Amino acid sequence: MKRTLQSAEDLLIARYFRPLARHAGAFGLEDDAAAIEPPAGCDLVLKADGIIAGVHFFPDDPPETVGKKALRVNLSDLAAKSAKPLGFLLTLALPGEIGEAWLSPFARGLGADAELFECPLLGGDTDRTGGPITISIAAFGAVPHGRMVRRAGARPGDRVVVTGTIGDATLGLLQRVDRDAPARWLLETHQQEHLRSRYLVPQPRTAVAELLRQYASAAMDISDGLVGDLTKLCRASGVDAVIEAQRVPLSDAARTVLGRDPSRIEAILTGGDDYEILIAVPPGELDVFRREAARREVAITEIGTVCAGEGEVRVLDKNGAALAFARPSFSHF
Amino acid sequence: MKRTLQSAEDLLIARYFRPLARHAGAFGLEDDAAAIEPPAGCDLVLKADGIIAGVHFFPDDPPETVGKKALRVNLSDLAAKSAKPLGFLLTLALPGEIGEAWLSPFARGLGADAELFECPLLGGDTDRTGGPITISIAAFGAVPHGRMVRRAGARPGDRVVVTGTIGDATLGLLQRVDRDAPARWLLETHQQEHLRSRYLVPQPRTAVAELLRQYASAAMDISDGLVGDLTKLCRASGVDAVIEAQRVPLSDAARTVLGRDPSRIEAILTGGDDYEILIAVPPGELDVFRREAARREVAITEIGTVCAGEGEVRVLDKNGAALAFARPSFSHF
Repeated sequence: MKRTLQSAEDLLIARYFRPLARHAGAFGLEDDAAAIEPPAGCDLVLKADGIIAGVHFFPDDPPETVGKKALRVNLSDLAAKSAKPLGFLLTLALPGEIGEAWLSPFARGLGADAELFECPLLGGDTDRTGGPITISIAAFGAVPHGRMVRRAGARPGDRVVVTGTIGDATLGLLQRVDRDAPARWLLETHQQEHLRSRYLVPQPRTAVAELLRQYASAAMDISDGLVGDLTKLCRASGVDAVIEAQRVPLSDAARTVLGRDPSRIEAILTGGDDYEILIAVPPGELDVFRREAARREVAITEIGTVCAGEGEVRVLDKNGAALAFARPSFSHF
Repeated sequence: MKRTLQSAEDLLIARYFRPLARHAGAFGLEDDAAAIEPPAGCDLVLKADGIIAGVHFFPDDPPETVGKKALRVNLSDLAAKSAKPLGFLLTLALPGEIGEAWLSPFARGLGADAELFECPLLGGDTDRTGGPITISIAAFGAVPHGRMVRRAGARPGDRVVVTGTIGDATLGLLQRVDRDAPARWLLETHQQEHLRSRYLVPQPRTAVAELLRQYASAAMDISDGLVGDLTKLCRASGVDAVIEAQRVPLSDAARTVLGRDPSRIEAILTGGDDYEILIAVPPGELDVFRREAARREVAITEIGTVCAGEGEVRVLDKNGAALAFARPSFSHF
């Protein structure tokens, strides 16, 4: 044999993904594995999260935003753990009909974010599947030794705070599946667009990652709904929490929806895909943390208090009565 | 709300995967990410590889061996790069019908190998999918700084050697899809069983991983067929290679198949799933490398020579004539 042809997989990797693999340790995706020198004195923070067409995104979502979302859901976790991104591995399973038209914008979106968040593609694997597009990303970050911010660590008296606004992504999903909703909710075009983009493209709070190990007792990213995720944090910390629904920060669009349909408070507080950070902060640290975060253009809002207990969360309405939810946490399962 | 129920995903993780996550840095799978302290003076070697039902394994393969295979295909890469395993992340996409009957043995097989190869589960993600079972593993290993063994590095004069035996897994696959083959090939029961188990459960050559950085100019694991993978190694190294078909080490079962059907040499030399290591070794190092490998119970066989060139591989038959192959490398694409 004089020459083997490159396989279709090799060609696809060379065309769409090699341009993203600029880190020297990725070896241009031309070896079996990547090698990186971990930063001295640091622990590695390791996270893997997958998104699947028909489960976490719509098959006809723009491929560029799918590429962004796949990476950002992992970057959101790294940020919540106070880790600085180092790079990621990508495992792609693609149905036979996926070609240039999807892959090119997918890789463009992924590559733009790899650059923006300084988190280079280091390696991966591409296969055909009989099922839907399945994108698994394993992302690595670094944090000074022993300083990863845990879910465990919240103490009675800590303030419960969140970054950004809550509920936009889940309302974006609702208006996507119920085409009449925007009109019913009297949403203006820019408000519809805001909710849509919050569903399609999460905003990982990388800007405050470093602050968390200075000011947070405990933190996690909010991916499965505020109430359910706060419950997880409380259980891991062995505490209870009380939050006030009317203190939860909402976008202008979400406030408009609530004005027309107050029952949507449940979707806002329990829906998934916020990708904001939920943080327990000692009361004496809150002001300086808020100021430091504001300097990094991330809004921090106090929504409640940690108290002694065993992992229960109470959500109070404006009259101090406890709200009850049918499904407190979102699960794709 | 007084109490949230745990989601089905949380329960599944707690039941099947938490017992595997014994490394302190996995935090019992109860945080958003894992944290590990990388060994001092080492680079991290990073690899992600996925296996999909209907593509890389049969949906009715024993779940226990599927769990083993998912981890072992990654361990094989780490070994070929001379890295010692540190741990792995698991991303599982499961069809709705997958429950206890599949998950329990799958986790048992995976857990047994995590223990055997000292490569603990550190974290991951589980989702439902409308498609087939899709298992993505990202595995991490450590190698002394700058010492990862590359595909690049083979030099003219180096010997081409392989571990173990070649072609068993692809024959195991052939006898699986062609039920009459074992009888036609006059395979005894233990030979059929040998080929079957080589297809189901790869043997990563972790035992010689450390030797590679001492004795190898270049190495890679053989997952897509000997000839195709040697071509990749030659291209990365900027050399040619000549190998002799009759020197390629075969199991007793593979020799029996060849005796009945000499045309199967193509499947043996170009089929996938060997998970042996292909190594270029300077001639002066070969004897001591072979002895050291033998002490670790891994057979090393010289099959050819590296020569000057630009990435071409010639396979000679016993008369010195070049063999030609219809499809020199296996691709799932």
